[in-house]
Amino acid sequence: MIEARLRVIYGDTDQMGVVYYANYFRYFELARGEFFRAKGGSYAAVEKEEGLFLPVVDARCQYKASARYDDVLLIRVEVTRLKRASMAFGYTVLRESDRALLCVGETVHACVGKDGRPVALPKSIVSVLGEVLPPA
Amino acid sequence: MIEARLRVIYGDTDQMGVVYYANYFRYFELARGEFFRAKGGSYAAVEKEEGLFLPVVDARCQYKASARYDDVLLIRVEVTRLKRASMAFGYTVLRESDRALLCVGETVHACVGKDGRPVALPKSIVSVLGEVLPPA
Amino acid sequence: MIEARLRVIYGDTDQMGVVYYANYFRYFELARGEFFRAKGGSYAAVEKEEGLFLPVVDARCQYKASARYDDVLLIRVEVTRLKRASMAFGYTVLRESDRALLCVGETVHACVGKDGRPVALPKSIVSVLGEVLPPA
Amino acid sequence: MIEARLRVIYGDTDQMGVVYYANYFRYFELARGEFFRAKGGSYAAVEKEEGLFLPVVDARCQYKASARYDDVLLIRVEVTRLKRASMAFGYTVLRESDRALLCVGETVHACVGKDGRPVALPKSIVSVLGEVLPPA
Repeated sequence: MIEARLRVIYGDTDQMGVVYYANYFRYFELARGEFFRAKGGSYAAVEKEEGLFLPVVDARCQYKASARYDDVLLIRVEVTRLKRASMAFGYTVLRESDRALLCVGETVHACVGKDGRPVALPKSIVSVLGEVLPPA
Repeated sequence: MIEARLRVIYGDTDQMGVVYYANYFRYFELARGEFFRAKGGSYAAVEKEEGLFLPVVDARCQYKASARYDDVLLIRVEVTRLKRASMAFGYTVLRESDRALLCVGETVHACVGKDGRPVALPKSIVSVLGEVLPPA
Repeated sequence: MIEARLRVIYGDTDQMGVVYYANYFRYFELARGEFFRAKGGSYAAVEKEEGLFLPVVDARCQYKASARYDDVLLIRVEVTRLKRASMAFGYTVLRESDRALLCVGETVHACVGKDGRPVALPKSIVSVLGEVLPPA
Repeated sequence: MIEARLRVIYGDTDQMGVVYYANYFRYFELARGEFFRAKGGSYAAVEKEEGLFLPVVDARCQYKASARYDDVLLIRVEVTRLKRASMAFGYTVLRESDRALLCVGETVHACVGKDGRPVALPKSIVSVLGEVLPPA
């Protein structure tokens, strides 16, 4: 499990005074990037070196409590599923100050080549991500 | 069922050349607003006149195909569930030019007062939204 | 002069209850796209058919009054400068309901090829944009 | 001068493969927040405790080179002008890896009360910000 950290900016809030719901999916992406980096890789390298993409095919978020301007958020991310040509990340977002649970989410990713066709996840990714897969 | 229409701007795309996944949730919100208006109300009025809010408690999107810059999108929205103090909207996004199905989504909303506590959906909303509820 | 029209969504507002300042630059881009279309072209075609890009090299906005959720905005755009390898658009944003002036802005664009080097604006663009240039 | 640091996410890029021009204004805001914090204050406190707001009345950015996905950016911010009821911040954005200059910008802020009327900048802000003002 990797934990990314960010501070909510004004531009992420809406007139209800809380983080706009769509922005959590941006936070999820930021955490995914940190995840790859923490494992010694990078998503940028997956695209450039492997010529592969991991587009989101399903995304979900359940909102439990609101984040506000200037809150520091902790976005925990882990691999929750690893199949031949797809994978899923699970997310938990907490507020740092009081450890309040703000939301939980999931994104499912296909592994595709430049032509958009499904491709088996390369060993380089599986070996990195597999290590952190929770035991079945 | 109400259909909102919008054209994808450059700022909504990402370096994969397609609409960034989080932006569909913005499109969903735009369509919800059109929905209220088409029914003779407005979400702004719900907040101002009723003192009620309909925050998103669950959001989901399944991505089927990609939208690109300059594509015109049709976002179809309908009420899919109406309970005492919550409701859900379902969305279908099509590209206008070829009617390709781009994604389907859902948002679930609580009805809360200014203090954040659950409140029964007022008659003014139910009467408007109930009319369009698909038969159970 | 071309006039684009859009309705402010919740996601464009911030906790001050008004449109977040950066979002006007997104509105400017939407208006630029409408401008090309109104002139019988499209910016997408400039990129695809001419292999040219018009990246922003300077952007500015002066804010006069605030836009709020659900406001309908009119974004007026015109070409304010046309040089050999660059051009500028000027913007005026009004609220439709009371014609209040919300902001004025400008974007300056270089004309570059795929390699990022400056290229003379092609006749196809000049002929379209030149027509609408205000007399010097 | 304060230096904020952030990594470009996918959602900040556009189909040209670079950071979308409007997003730099979000980065500027992030850096402003860091600035207040580095000076022992917080913009959130200005709003809450002083009942004052510092809305942007003018914003500008000149783009020199492009930032790409996964780039780490350094956003340098300093106070460039301090008047009775307004102030300005200047920004310089560099890429961390090669110190390339990406853009320079400025935002001008009015100081207003809850009613939107201009108010003199309070001593608490001036004393904090004045210290860092470059000599005239």
